[in-house]
Amino acid sequence: MGVAFAKRMEFMKASEIREILKITENPEIISFAGGLPAPELFPVKEMKHVTELVLEENGRQALQYSTTEGFVPLRRQIAERMNRKNETSVTYEDIRIISGSQQGLDFTGKLFIDEGDVVLCESPTYLAAISAFRAYRPVFKEVPTDDDGMVMADLKKILATTNRVKFIYVIPDFQNPSGRTWSLARRRQLIELMNEYEIPVIEDNPYGELRFEGEMLPSLKSMDQKGLVIYISTFSKIFCPGLRIGWIAADSRFLDKYVLIKQGADLHTSILSQRQIAKFIEIYDLDAFVANIINVYRRRRDVMVETMQAEFPGTVKFTYSQGGLFTWAVLPERIKAVELLLNCLRNYNVAFVPGDSFFPNGGVTNTLRLNYSNMPEEKIVEGIKRLARAINEY
Amino acid sequence: MGVAFAKRMEFMKASEIREILKITENPEIISFAGGLPAPELFPVKEMKHVTELVLEENGRQALQYSTTEGFVPLRRQIAERMNRKNETSVTYEDIRIISGSQQGLDFTGKLFIDEGDVVLCESPTYLAAISAFRAYRPVFKEVPTDDDGMVMADLKKILATTNRVKFIYVIPDFQNPSGRTWSLARRRQLIELMNEYEIPVIEDNPYGELRFEGEMLPSLKSMDQKGLVIYISTFSKIFCPGLRIGWIAADSRFLDKYVLIKQGADLHTSILSQRQIAKFIEIYDLDAFVANIINVYRRRRDVMVETMQAEFPGTVKFTYSQGGLFTWAVLPERIKAVELLLNCLRNYNVAFVPGDSFFPNGGVTNTLRLNYSNMPEEKIVEGIKRLARAINEY
Repeated sequence: MGVAFAKRMEFMKASEIREILKITENPEIISFAGGLPAPELFPVKEMKHVTELVLEENGRQALQYSTTEGFVPLRRQIAERMNRKNETSVTYEDIRIISGSQQGLDFTGKLFIDEGDVVLCESPTYLAAISAFRAYRPVFKEVPTDDDGMVMADLKKILATTNRVKFIYVIPDFQNPSGRTWSLARRRQLIELMNEYEIPVIEDNPYGELRFEGEMLPSLKSMDQKGLVIYISTFSKIFCPGLRIGWIAADSRFLDKYVLIKQGADLHTSILSQRQIAKFIEIYDLDAFVANIINVYRRRRDVMVETMQAEFPGTVKFTYSQGGLFTWAVLPERIKAVELLLNCLRNYNVAFVPGDSFFPNGGVTNTLRLNYSNMPEEKIVEGIKRLARAINEY
Repeated sequence: MGVAFAKRMEFMKASEIREILKITENPEIISFAGGLPAPELFPVKEMKHVTELVLEENGRQALQYSTTEGFVPLRRQIAERMNRKNETSVTYEDIRIISGSQQGLDFTGKLFIDEGDVVLCESPTYLAAISAFRAYRPVFKEVPTDDDGMVMADLKKILATTNRVKFIYVIPDFQNPSGRTWSLARRRQLIELMNEYEIPVIEDNPYGELRFEGEMLPSLKSMDQKGLVIYISTFSKIFCPGLRIGWIAADSRFLDKYVLIKQGADLHTSILSQRQIAKFIEIYDLDAFVANIINVYRRRRDVMVETMQAEFPGTVKFTYSQGGLFTWAVLPERIKAVELLLNCLRNYNVAFVPGDSFFPNGGVTNTLRLNYSNMPEEKIVEGIKRLARAINEY
């Protein structure tokens, strides 16, 4: 009979970002390619202390099998923070713990997508969401975006003319890759369309707390009267990613299914890690910790944007992101970002992610994503200068 | 349009075991239902120490994003232990880290199964493997088993007459649920058939190290000349399950695909947990730690089996398991194990898992699985006596 893989494997290919990241492990390279937080801000000492406490107080429980739903005290803390920051009114019963928000994306694909079903998303959208969904073989329909978020006239047209739309996937705050944030009006319009069509909306919000200026806008989840918004978030960007702790906040009709999926997928998320974070939130000030991250990233964003303004040719447009980890540049159309990257790696020791792979159906070749959270300010200045030289040379 | 789930969700139902486990959280109940290790043996103090060291030595790396493939030093340690215990000849390049062996089962389904493909498995087989595979909608063909493992005449017949067999899933050592171990002859015959048909074999081996007496038999992986055995194991039973660390050992043509799947599913497994276990293996004696677990479980197995011999009616047959966590009883056919359980919970405060759900195609109603690892000896005696009364009463 021989070895035969499932058909879905034909659609799962190695991620360009990951291959690039392998090259950029070379410390000589100034890399704006990853989406990594600044490790110098990680609470290493505090993690030592909370681990000690968790193991002293509940060592056996922290190392034993645990529930699929997640650690109740952590779920309570998450609900409390969401209500305070995202204007929701959830309780721990509306929260389930997952192994990083990536797992929430994979489970969402598993929950909703049969082959040929339609997923609506922003154009561009998060690369790893595309990979997660693609395993279930949907058709992606990209909805155009502008500086205020998804263009509602386009979404309306697509919804009116498309069958088998299973959900709308969006990142309204400091979007990956574009760095843009949806306006309040767009949020309201999306909720109206969601209600009209009764289509689930996946609100992916890993960066929302990292706002550098201006007021936090209400989450889609907080505007949802019909229980159609499935909210996914993570501690990766506001605490540290190595522990792989994320969560889903949603209506129980969805949560019950996510729990079934998680039982088959990995039983439960590390209970030691869940208790470590819960203990940290209990005895330290997570808000103050996040405030410090914000201060550092704000300066890095400033430095990156200022250097881009000074050094890039006027034909390059880029996002002035109000938070999060990324800015996004649109080059003149004749410049191929992939070629630019190869030149940058060869001659300038600088890396970024060509925007091509953030468009699930391809066809856009002149964009690039730049990460500013993971490089010190002087390297940002130097790296952007080199990148500007490479663009000018092109 | 409305909310519509993927078709696969019709086949994913709440696990009977999990619902039972919820009842048995009542501490009055003597539970043989779970598959939990003995928490009093967990290395709580040692975990405190290794966490301290990991965070002191490599705090930032231990909390940052990490590679999908897994932590290289841990992969080296796993390879070394496998070669020593399972007679394999693998290197760290043949090992990938996963979030518990359950994740390996889910990924295996994702890698191989299209709707309608055939999965061959032992009858009975591990409940949570059935759940993991079922999400991808295969047809299960159960291969009969006896005290020596899978019956090869039956497997041969099925292979000769069945199309679209994607893999053969087996647990050759101290099988869950039956507690039985395959003979050397059966292992060899399986490898012959595997080679003849070039069918991948999934060797699930979470319990193999927990042998109470007799000699360890060579793993299927060690007999594999063609790179067709995909070996899955875990630290859950030889260390502790709360951290969710398992591994896959296989040929690179499979591992490359597993890594792609893992990238989309959860990016990587907690790097802090991987480093904690690696540090434990580095500075403590994991073999001595496992030897202690074996001593405790052997006594519990003895006590359970002796009490069953003394108290159960002669019409009940059960496995004298040489290792692992479970024994398995076959009742007279007229006794329905589910009814027996309800009576046991109502009148005797004792719990077990009816065997029904270990048969993917159903139809067997007079078996039960008993776990001895999670109860102290005196409770095992008392619980088995109560169970015997309930059987006699039936």
